[in-house]
Amino acid sequence: MHQYQIKVPASSANIGPGFDVLGMSLEVYMTLDVQVSDEKGHCVLSYEGDGAEEVPLDIHKNMITQTALYVLRCHNIHEFPSATKIHVKNPIPLGRGMGSSGSAAIAGVVLANELAHLQLSKLQMMDYVLMIERHPDNVMASMMGGFVGSFLRELSDTEKEAMLPSASDLLTNKGFSRPPVNMGRYTTLPWAPELKALVVIPQFHLSTSKARSVLPSSYTKPDVIYNLQRLALLTTALGQTPVNHQLIHEVMKDKVHQPYRSQLIPGLQTILAQMTPESQPGLCGICLSGAGPTILSLATDHYEEIAQTMVNIFRQNNVECSYLVLSPAFEGASVSY
Amino acid sequence: MHQYQIKVPASSANIGPGFDVLGMSLEVYMTLDVQVSDEKGHCVLSYEGDGAEEVPLDIHKNMITQTALYVLRCHNIHEFPSATKIHVKNPIPLGRGMGSSGSAAIAGVVLANELAHLQLSKLQMMDYVLMIERHPDNVMASMMGGFVGSFLRELSDTEKEAMLPSASDLLTNKGFSRPPVNMGRYTTLPWAPELKALVVIPQFHLSTSKARSVLPSSYTKPDVIYNLQRLALLTTALGQTPVNHQLIHEVMKDKVHQPYRSQLIPGLQTILAQMTPESQPGLCGICLSGAGPTILSLATDHYEEIAQTMVNIFRQNNVECSYLVLSPAFEGASVSY
Repeated sequence: MHQYQIKVPASSANIGPGFDVLGMSLEVYMTLDVQVSDEKGHCVLSYEGDGAEEVPLDIHKNMITQTALYVLRCHNIHEFPSATKIHVKNPIPLGRGMGSSGSAAIAGVVLANELAHLQLSKLQMMDYVLMIERHPDNVMASMMGGFVGSFLRELSDTEKEAMLPSASDLLTNKGFSRPPVNMGRYTTLPWAPELKALVVIPQFHLSTSKARSVLPSSYTKPDVIYNLQRLALLTTALGQTPVNHQLIHEVMKDKVHQPYRSQLIPGLQTILAQMTPESQPGLCGICLSGAGPTILSLATDHYEEIAQTMVNIFRQNNVECSYLVLSPAFEGASVSY
Repeated sequence: MHQYQIKVPASSANIGPGFDVLGMSLEVYMTLDVQVSDEKGHCVLSYEGDGAEEVPLDIHKNMITQTALYVLRCHNIHEFPSATKIHVKNPIPLGRGMGSSGSAAIAGVVLANELAHLQLSKLQMMDYVLMIERHPDNVMASMMGGFVGSFLRELSDTEKEAMLPSASDLLTNKGFSRPPVNMGRYTTLPWAPELKALVVIPQFHLSTSKARSVLPSSYTKPDVIYNLQRLALLTTALGQTPVNHQLIHEVMKDKVHQPYRSQLIPGLQTILAQMTPESQPGLCGICLSGAGPTILSLATDHYEEIAQTMVNIFRQNNVECSYLVLSPAFEGASVSY
């Protein structure tokens, strides 16, 4: 019998003007404690943490093991190769914009890689992750670690066919196809060591599909240029020491998704309008984390005060929330033996 | 009597997906050899180089001296303070997308700063430049040097009023207002030392207003995301050593202005479709320089071969062109005594 631990950080995506491209990993980790015996046998799953009441423990219904089984099928392996016990600890809140489902998909791929000794590199593992989570921004940051820009390369017609089965069909084995090779493009972006992320997490769920449905299908030229201008500076500004609070505040503004989603998140508009580096010492910028409702702030100090101001604004809108102060998880997904 | 030389580099803007935001200075310099005597008197202008037949030498019609006079008026000075002789040498081709008018505006502001001992910083001088050239991408790169992301900050209502007179009215003194303070936001972006710019300059003019008129007023969400994704990586990829040719090629692609402008530049579509790092060793990426018709390529070697391929494609489209291989002008605008 041997055992190991798989660790996958949470993530925040859509940072500022970087809709569908910028992501950062956050040092809150989903862990899988895995025990493997040499005998053939079933996989037994246990789970503690956020979502413990709702997360299924049947390995054909749980997203982590479903993902692992999909990767195994891609390698012509049709069941767990050994008797396996997996204990999942998950402190990442589900459905709040902190990349929990992406972290689960990564955990599943890493699990398959370990169980079947596939010896895939992180970039090779990403191809399987991207079949399950089709947007790379959260998962690339979670897997690679740190602050990351990413996108899917343009696929050939044959490769597009491989993407036709939905993630849900792949997970339930109603459809099957192997991933195109080397789909994800990414670059690790610089990060000033004094910057930390404050995530304020409202106590309600917001489905990504609902949050996507409020977005327009086209944008005016001025709004497009507004985001391009800020994005071009943000990727460099977050790596500069000393941190320029005012500049970061300006270049974290967005006109592509936040204005449309603020109707779904009571308090967001007030927070964006009232909280600036002038009114709130230490604060750099504020944006939605992923599709929300979590709010991501970048700051250099006075985290408690910044958090309290936000908690109070949410409370005035009858929303309770919790918060965490986190550094980026620079290592990304890892396995320790 | 004393003398000095003002040097202002050319520039390329709209780099890749960075429409209206990314610019780089290029080491081709407009120079002003200035002789100032202590007596009161007129300014005498002479000019050699590109546009020598068309550029007016009347100081109330020449853009450099018009700009200088505008800056002087902003400081309550209504004529050239001393007898001045200015010899302009301009190797920057006019109306080709290499920022010649921006360089002239900068030269004028720097001239006024010297003549009236205004002691303005480069960022303060930029406020005047931006009253004449309202898009900061070319001029910020030319003034500050290197590879630069820039935009105008959001102006207050009072500040917007200051922008009401057109640049042409300010230059001819038909309208007057002082610039808002500290209008430009910029960040110098990293640049890998092995990267050089190859500019291929077709022998025809393309007015910026015509090139702007073919752009749409709105963009689809996929096209917006396409540019955001590439822009987020480009600003970091161009600073990475060793240079990743394939990555830069992918992230220099654009869907915001090039597809619309290719109808105005015979050969551009063929160049973009056929020339890749695989087919053309040393080549990283290709894009329009500014509003065109000049083509900017970034490459690490084999400049002659890349240039020849482009020259041949243009020739097949009955367009003759010249070319230059240039590094960024890292110092930006300067004065030497």
